[in-house]
Amino acid sequence: MNYPGGIKKRQSPLQNNFVDYANRGMKLEDDLNITNNYYRDINKAVIYKKPTPIKITKVNFLSRSNVTIKEAFFDTPSTTDYNGIYKGKYIDFEAKETTSKTSFPLSNIHPHQLKHLEMIEEHGGIAFIIVKFTHLNKIYLLLEKDLKQFLNNTTRKSIPLSFFENNGYMIKEKFNPRIDYLEILDNIGGNNEEKN
Amino acid sequence: MNYPGGIKKRQSPLQNNFVDYANRGMKLEDDLNITNNYYRDINKAVIYKKPTPIKITKVNFLSRSNVTIKEAFFDTPSTTDYNGIYKGKYIDFEAKETTSKTSFPLSNIHPHQLKHLEMIEEHGGIAFIIVKFTHLNKIYLLLEKDLKQFLNNTTRKSIPLSFFENNGYMIKEKFNPRIDYLEILDNIGGNNEEKN
Repeated sequence: MNYPGGIKKRQSPLQNNFVDYANRGMKLEDDLNITNNYYRDINKAVIYKKPTPIKITKVNFLSRSNVTIKEAFFDTPSTTDYNGIYKGKYIDFEAKETTSKTSFPLSNIHPHQLKHLEMIEEHGGIAFIIVKFTHLNKIYLLLEKDLKQFLNNTTRKSIPLSFFENNGYMIKEKFNPRIDYLEILDNIGGNNEEKN
Repeated sequence: MNYPGGIKKRQSPLQNNFVDYANRGMKLEDDLNITNNYYRDINKAVIYKKPTPIKITKVNFLSRSNVTIKEAFFDTPSTTDYNGIYKGKYIDFEAKETTSKTSFPLSNIHPHQLKHLEMIEEHGGIAFIIVKFTHLNKIYLLLEKDLKQFLNNTTRKSIPLSFFENNGYMIKEKFNPRIDYLEILDNIGGNNEEKN
């Protein structure tokens, strides 16, 4: 939603003290959480963001109901951030933002996350990544099979924007749901030729 | 694995400093993690335990790669602990232990977790709970539809062992995989009459 003067108004129910307007890194995640809440509210799909993996090193244990974590660290995720079910199908994806205007750095995704997406595809799930080029305000969904095709044929350390334009599916931001990626999956259907 | 004198020998690769031999609460989780690792290793299924949800309240931020959590609390889970994909199907379950010899207290499972399992079933996934009666050394898999049947017809605050015996499926502990719950799902197949 763009307001006059380029001000972006946000009233996210998920917004908390850790997120501020300058924190671009959280915006896509917030919008996907709101989108997934919406999908659940209308009973369209059950898809959640997994909790952030954390390695706990010090705990203050007073009682079963009174436990405070006194020291912990962010852990490397072994899987992707989002998964769930849609129309009986297993859905699995990773979402990332980049400030680059020309390409998506592959360093943003861990190799075991790529391996995970590949396994999901092999096992009959729907696996993809959602990438937002924040400075272009463009969001693309790229299926794992297309991502793999790229990775198998290059030594590049980033995926050029043109690859997303030619092989991905652009997701237009809406009011509700904000990032309607399930509509993209509906449109793709079984017809892999039908690109946007 | 029962050794002479009733000693249980455990050599879990997941065992860490927080888990000791007396901590019965972790045993089922450990064994399920090892089972899921095994399923992934043989490429049978891709099922993970989700990270424990944590609410972070204080962070020491030195740099992007040097962040220490200084205070955090365990959060109420909004979904179940385990999900993934098996034979193209979405799998979702919660696992709990009880020291009771006669019934499983429903207070062990949050109402929104029960609601979550119900939604998964509605959306065409395979939803269930795994309950271990630790003092009886018996593990049961109970499908969501049978669990719902029980909940809809009672005001009881616990599920009697006999209900698991009559409506659930006993999982016999093995060496590898330790808790072969996918074998149970294979055996159930489409035939709901075939109980153990």
